[in-house]
Amino acid sequence: MEILKTKKHMQEWSVGKKKTSKTICFVPTMGYLHQGHISLLEKGKPLCDELVLSIFVNPTQFGPNEDLDTYPNNIENDLRLAEAAGVTVVFLPQKEEIYPDDFQTRISLDFLPDHLCGKSRPVFFGGIVTVVTKLFNIVMPDVTIFGKKDYQQFLIIRQMIRDLDLNIKILGGEIVREPDGLAMSSRNAYLTTEQRESALSLSRSLKMAEQAIAGGEKNSGVIVKQLTAFIQSFSQTRIDYICFCDPQTLEPVKFIDKQTLLSLAVQVDKTRLIDNIIIDPIQ
Amino acid sequence: MEILKTKKHMQEWSVGKKKTSKTICFVPTMGYLHQGHISLLEKGKPLCDELVLSIFVNPTQFGPNEDLDTYPNNIENDLRLAEAAGVTVVFLPQKEEIYPDDFQTRISLDFLPDHLCGKSRPVFFGGIVTVVTKLFNIVMPDVTIFGKKDYQQFLIIRQMIRDLDLNIKILGGEIVREPDGLAMSSRNAYLTTEQRESALSLSRSLKMAEQAIAGGEKNSGVIVKQLTAFIQSFSQTRIDYICFCDPQTLEPVKFIDKQTLLSLAVQVDKTRLIDNIIIDPIQ
Repeated sequence: MEILKTKKHMQEWSVGKKKTSKTICFVPTMGYLHQGHISLLEKGKPLCDELVLSIFVNPTQFGPNEDLDTYPNNIENDLRLAEAAGVTVVFLPQKEEIYPDDFQTRISLDFLPDHLCGKSRPVFFGGIVTVVTKLFNIVMPDVTIFGKKDYQQFLIIRQMIRDLDLNIKILGGEIVREPDGLAMSSRNAYLTTEQRESALSLSRSLKMAEQAIAGGEKNSGVIVKQLTAFIQSFSQTRIDYICFCDPQTLEPVKFIDKQTLLSLAVQVDKTRLIDNIIIDPIQ
Repeated sequence: MEILKTKKHMQEWSVGKKKTSKTICFVPTMGYLHQGHISLLEKGKPLCDELVLSIFVNPTQFGPNEDLDTYPNNIENDLRLAEAAGVTVVFLPQKEEIYPDDFQTRISLDFLPDHLCGKSRPVFFGGIVTVVTKLFNIVMPDVTIFGKKDYQQFLIIRQMIRDLDLNIKILGGEIVREPDGLAMSSRNAYLTTEQRESALSLSRSLKMAEQAIAGGEKNSGVIVKQLTAFIQSFSQTRIDYICFCDPQTLEPVKFIDKQTLLSLAVQVDKTRLIDNIIIDPIQ
């Protein structure tokens, strides 16, 4: 496994692969890898000749009161896990090279960021879509894989790839959960034992909603009320949103009569957690 | 010379060239080719294995009261000129394929568009930089050439290439002028004989400024006043801007003591004309 730390080295490596018709699968991450990331690498491994992982905690996607400075990291462990997962190159760029002093180009989307996490995190998706475009142009992948826990991010990157005509196939990786149902996240490391219990309110809410819909409930407002009460019954929880929406446009859905995304964001003390499920109602 | 009309065909052609290590030079245009465009093609021809020209009148860079609907075109003549200049592929995309109904991604720059033409044409550079990024991702050039008559556009595309880490070398083509000094432009076709005379006030202003600076004048405000009076003495002229500025940042320059860009935009009746020169003062 090679470790490349500059844009120049990474881009030269990728250009060399293109010239020899080798294909590249790329999984961009912010590091502190967990089984969710590993599942993306495992999904990508058989698809291409090369498997590239990037680790870069992207400052432009964090708001002023968010956890940029405390974001967890463990690079030695990440490299060990990457090698075990068959990664051929790890790209570890430096902040100064990704954002030089005269950097001034931004990519934005008109509609998809107006929903869900984009409402409470106004700089979030602009930061993500810009850095991902940069990483794509440096790594030049044929295939990229994004986890569907960050479902809105997956949709936004997919739309950006289409809109900017990038010659990249994007695949989504399913959510990986702890045995008790908690969706894997680097931010789970922040949780105390008590908060860990409160964090289970997210995945349990998804189950509750699924059961309610299976039982014939089609009014999203009714279910949102139930879930709100349920999540609020756990200590230190503050709901950011509970939203039923169209899985393609993210427009809110009132009446659940077709495949619908249920997406949640809940702050447990200072830790912001998200989770989601796509539910097919009984027609 | 091949003519490709879909993104898919163009991108497949380019991917094929990459796999055989062929290099691609790309000149994007809005058609109605003149000697200025030809000079860009001639500059690019010896640099790469393949020379690609695109012709696409990009709707998103025109404001509501601008000349999108009347923009001149003569595709047969363009193709004849392209072939004579050694173009190997002409890319002729359709508007519907470049901007499908759900298109929503935009690229913008924070600072460079705040000057010169960006002030009076608020959607202009956002539209250009977005469509050029798309064209770059479709054509996948190694080298691209932009004319320096659109000096601000050249700077903005160069900055976007750097900021988004596109693996593309950009070169500028010098301004090509008619024998009487008028900078070549597709929009010159709009001018009546009388307006054509007024249009000469632009290039003559550049000469006047050059002489004033060679004569020791260093105060940009003094020269702008002279040029304003001069241009206003021609019929049907309306000055948009006359600006001395830094050739890299486009920040206005008061005291001309180093290399300085003089940039002009003048409306002659309904035809908006631009011209510029970089002047080195006597130190």
